[in-house]
Amino acid sequence: MIIVMRAHASSAQIEHVTSRIDALGFEVHLSQGAERTIIGVIGDERPLDRAMFEVMDGVERTISILPPYKLASREWRPEGSVIPVGDGAVGGPRLAMIAGPCSVESRGQLLEIAHAVKEAGATMLRGGAFKPRSSPYTFQGLGVEGLELLAEAREATGLPIVTEVMAPDKVELVAEFADVLQIGARNMQNYPLLQAVGKTRMPVLLKRGMMSTIEELLMSAEYILAGGNYQVMLCERGIRTFETYTRNTTDINAIAALKQLSHLPVIGDPSHSTGKWPLVIPVARAMVATGVDGLMVEVHHDPEHALSDGAQSLKPERFAALVQETRRIAEAVGRAV
Amino acid sequence: MIIVMRAHASSAQIEHVTSRIDALGFEVHLSQGAERTIIGVIGDERPLDRAMFEVMDGVERTISILPPYKLASREWRPEGSVIPVGDGAVGGPRLAMIAGPCSVESRGQLLEIAHAVKEAGATMLRGGAFKPRSSPYTFQGLGVEGLELLAEAREATGLPIVTEVMAPDKVELVAEFADVLQIGARNMQNYPLLQAVGKTRMPVLLKRGMMSTIEELLMSAEYILAGGNYQVMLCERGIRTFETYTRNTTDINAIAALKQLSHLPVIGDPSHSTGKWPLVIPVARAMVATGVDGLMVEVHHDPEHALSDGAQSLKPERFAALVQETRRIAEAVGRAV
Amino acid sequence: MIIVMRAHASSAQIEHVTSRIDALGFEVHLSQGAERTIIGVIGDERPLDRAMFEVMDGVERTISILPPYKLASREWRPEGSVIPVGDGAVGGPRLAMIAGPCSVESRGQLLEIAHAVKEAGATMLRGGAFKPRSSPYTFQGLGVEGLELLAEAREATGLPIVTEVMAPDKVELVAEFADVLQIGARNMQNYPLLQAVGKTRMPVLLKRGMMSTIEELLMSAEYILAGGNYQVMLCERGIRTFETYTRNTTDINAIAALKQLSHLPVIGDPSHSTGKWPLVIPVARAMVATGVDGLMVEVHHDPEHALSDGAQSLKPERFAALVQETRRIAEAVGRAV
Amino acid sequence: MIIVMRAHASSAQIEHVTSRIDALGFEVHLSQGAERTIIGVIGDERPLDRAMFEVMDGVERTISILPPYKLASREWRPEGSVIPVGDGAVGGPRLAMIAGPCSVESRGQLLEIAHAVKEAGATMLRGGAFKPRSSPYTFQGLGVEGLELLAEAREATGLPIVTEVMAPDKVELVAEFADVLQIGARNMQNYPLLQAVGKTRMPVLLKRGMMSTIEELLMSAEYILAGGNYQVMLCERGIRTFETYTRNTTDINAIAALKQLSHLPVIGDPSHSTGKWPLVIPVARAMVATGVDGLMVEVHHDPEHALSDGAQSLKPERFAALVQETRRIAEAVGRAV
Repeated sequence: MIIVMRAHASSAQIEHVTSRIDALGFEVHLSQGAERTIIGVIGDERPLDRAMFEVMDGVERTISILPPYKLASREWRPEGSVIPVGDGAVGGPRLAMIAGPCSVESRGQLLEIAHAVKEAGATMLRGGAFKPRSSPYTFQGLGVEGLELLAEAREATGLPIVTEVMAPDKVELVAEFADVLQIGARNMQNYPLLQAVGKTRMPVLLKRGMMSTIEELLMSAEYILAGGNYQVMLCERGIRTFETYTRNTTDINAIAALKQLSHLPVIGDPSHSTGKWPLVIPVARAMVATGVDGLMVEVHHDPEHALSDGAQSLKPERFAALVQETRRIAEAVGRAV
Repeated sequence: MIIVMRAHASSAQIEHVTSRIDALGFEVHLSQGAERTIIGVIGDERPLDRAMFEVMDGVERTISILPPYKLASREWRPEGSVIPVGDGAVGGPRLAMIAGPCSVESRGQLLEIAHAVKEAGATMLRGGAFKPRSSPYTFQGLGVEGLELLAEAREATGLPIVTEVMAPDKVELVAEFADVLQIGARNMQNYPLLQAVGKTRMPVLLKRGMMSTIEELLMSAEYILAGGNYQVMLCERGIRTFETYTRNTTDINAIAALKQLSHLPVIGDPSHSTGKWPLVIPVARAMVATGVDGLMVEVHHDPEHALSDGAQSLKPERFAALVQETRRIAEAVGRAV
Repeated sequence: MIIVMRAHASSAQIEHVTSRIDALGFEVHLSQGAERTIIGVIGDERPLDRAMFEVMDGVERTISILPPYKLASREWRPEGSVIPVGDGAVGGPRLAMIAGPCSVESRGQLLEIAHAVKEAGATMLRGGAFKPRSSPYTFQGLGVEGLELLAEAREATGLPIVTEVMAPDKVELVAEFADVLQIGARNMQNYPLLQAVGKTRMPVLLKRGMMSTIEELLMSAEYILAGGNYQVMLCERGIRTFETYTRNTTDINAIAALKQLSHLPVIGDPSHSTGKWPLVIPVARAMVATGVDGLMVEVHHDPEHALSDGAQSLKPERFAALVQETRRIAEAVGRAV
Repeated sequence: MIIVMRAHASSAQIEHVTSRIDALGFEVHLSQGAERTIIGVIGDERPLDRAMFEVMDGVERTISILPPYKLASREWRPEGSVIPVGDGAVGGPRLAMIAGPCSVESRGQLLEIAHAVKEAGATMLRGGAFKPRSSPYTFQGLGVEGLELLAEAREATGLPIVTEVMAPDKVELVAEFADVLQIGARNMQNYPLLQAVGKTRMPVLLKRGMMSTIEELLMSAEYILAGGNYQVMLCERGIRTFETYTRNTTDINAIAALKQLSHLPVIGDPSHSTGKWPLVIPVARAMVATGVDGLMVEVHHDPEHALSDGAQSLKPERFAALVQETRRIAEAVGRAV
């Protein structure tokens, strides 16, 4: 950590800061600049709260030097992590293609879509049984019945299941049915939930909060890793910006940055990151071109009658086109679909 | 709801939309504009998912007409709600002054601060026993022990207690000790948690998510109200923007807007909304001038040794100055502190 | 335009609104909903100021139906525009590859880079003679001398020149030397400048403001088109968001959306949209995969000694790699580099 | 400046960085941390381009220590600047109350409003003769005729005139008529314009760009100050965020921060910062409570027929109420209206 003193900080103020650093067991490194004195704090600063220095008289601001995450960083593990799921793996040369409806609505709906996406090239099935909905007046998901239907669809198609868990006291239940536990964007900083999935040894798909930074996403991953569960995939699903034409703004930079900063696999979700089905395929191509390890796409055989998120769902034939188009891009970057 | 058709939508496409509206039990209102056909959907649109229309051929976009919240709206309840807490109330002529440390750290710390804020004019005591921390390596709160200390501080000072609950399975526990259940910004869209506090009949202080719109805040309040708990206070605690000089951007417009859109009391949190103690007092004055029903302020007797959020904590004497300064503003707007 | 009345608007208030619409020569279309009356304004609403209705008693809000731009829309011109520049064209099957230094610094620097980018596959040369710099204490560009050097570099390499013009009274001067007039992001809404380039018949590369919406970008293009100059290329160069790891956030959605909303060619600028050279190549691949009509890339042979923007500049050999990698992507989407 | 090296930077890489610092005439200060080497650059870093270091091998990132502005800082001039305008001054104990229409529309309109705002307590008259409009199809201002009408209104009321200048080649013309030159939000980074007004010795009201940080606003002020014109007032007029209920988000934190960071007076513009007239008065109160040196408010006697921005304009009687209400707040903070 670096502590920048105000322009005319007194030597007593500087002395006060350095003696506190000393008392905390860190080494002090003093540097007298042209207009400011700068104090370096030597040691692993991660457990330190910078705020305690910011309140001291004469301190202008503090600056972190080390990234606050450790286990999630590529420094910690230079080679990329590969996470086995079902017969396949996420993070290897072949991209994961996760597809399915936003919500599990009925047995018929789920099985029809599951077979269709399998046919088109999907390698995993997604579907929500517990749904975070912004209105209390809309469909909230089928709950346990939805989980059972997902298990039946896996049985029928062989596709591993990705489904969301929304509360720490439901982790055990969802883990019974799912192959991958999804943490939704609104729960990216639900720490009791992160701790609960950190205690399992199941693959976790951690979605970036719509207004969370890249660093915060990696810190949320760190929570799970620090719990001993190393099976974490990150998911870019768009961030909230001033632009309103699209539901979210796909942060394509973040995909490139995450691959450089972290060893964890990165999944792109072009359905949520655009919110409009006509944009899903071009943005899916972009994600693959940038280097994602997989895609997660909402597919519905009858979006006009979908109970949620129809506007961003592809029909199965459009999903088949997506697979074709992204396959060509994947090959152009040395990967496979 | 309004459905805007594309420029050259065919009559078959229009017919398809209108027959679907009809089938859903709504009335259709067709309007042929200069370049677009517009279809009105007459009826209570709140349970409808606009997305199901957005996927239909020929549809350009859909527009909501009704606000998605109902019980939280001032239309529903024109006079402001007043929520009794302890011997006082929130929403009446006298402002609530909620003060205390970010985290409960020890018996000595809490009692010292509790007495100091009471002395300076606080009407409630805040303090975190369960803390959402972005790093797994920092202090996570004292848990149940913290709740017990808060109860002891209430005993000693007579100040009602505001404290955060982070998971649905902890609501019962926290409710045993607290006078007001706080939902933190990161949990504003934690729906299982909203449903759990909606089942209690305790006052809830709902903080706006740093990434959430005014409408989304009101929808989260709606979740609690729809559960039958009408004791909800809203809290503006700053939003995330491109500006980095301050930790968050105080959305002062939102305070004025919430007072017009909703009957629920609004609390301002200038500590989090600025993130820097030298800005807390001027922004607290602004909040009172705009019309908040109370303030929530972080106070610590020794911020240099605080275990969290020291940089935005006021020392007790600064908090006393805040009370004096905001009192003058409150009087200028016909309220009292 | 749609005018939504408040819940209990009186018939006198409704009558007042409709008589004003009538007086303005538009047709009124009244619709009585479940909780609100809605008034449709039939006719070309583009010259109307919605604000005049928003101040009327009983009005809740107004909603535009027509996009505010016309000449820039794909409705106006369904096939894509192709803009001839030098011997080539922008908007056809072959992508424009615009490369060169941020600033023209010297004859030696410019010629070395010009030859290098030509060699690597560039089809146009970029370079700033007039530079918008956020500090008055840093290099402001060589001005006219820079323009002369650009002309010399065109002579030497055959590459057409793209360079920025910053003030209306400099358009004539820059137009003498340039093949394409660039409007920088900070000037996207400099209307006297847009009007001035609208009076020329030269190709214009219009960069999106870093906090401007897709619609505002198209409205700025509309200014130029309305002046009679149809040679406009749009440029996505990243927007400002809360994310600070990257200098800007590449809005990849916007590229896909602009290709659907408008007939104008779209250029991607991965140098500014990321601000970090290690991210330039993966994001350039993404842009091509999405469907841009060209790329604009900063290249410097010695970025350690560049007078501006070195951090996002590629060395010539990295630019050559970019050309190779994007060529494979271009082929995968049926285009050529 | 601080240069942070990557975790395993080689000594040759470190040596390369330090020798470059040395060659630039700065002193090097090396500090070996737990996981990173940090290099301090001692001297006035303002003319340095950090980017030149960011491209060097082994460099992770660079951090500025000094604020990039100097003349605009309170360090440079600890006491606040007071700027004489007409018979009054901005920055003293009495607040400037600048009011008038968005656009000058006609002689009758302007004189009626000028007399009304004078009556209500305004101390300056605002009105646009040259208008930046986002659509080429809407009213663009009366130009020179508007300036002449403003001069006539000053004659009639004694109120000094604030009006916008949009292009460097129009500064001389506008300066003939105006008392204060306004730089609009969209031109905050129009550097040729900043340089042009920097050459005059007239008061300048510099509006913050809706996408600009506090630091960028101060850097734009620095451009004018560096030109030798010290008569600069800053204006907070709202920033663009994800919130769409209001047109902009009033950054009340910025007002408090600017008063601490800079000696320049700060004006608040609650009309643009909210975009909705029912929010103007509460937000005006907030601005005064925070510590602005003046307010700028749009007033129109007939907003239903205003040619621009009617939705945020107050009628004269509402403006009179604003003056009354803010007077009480001003007194509560030791100022006068």
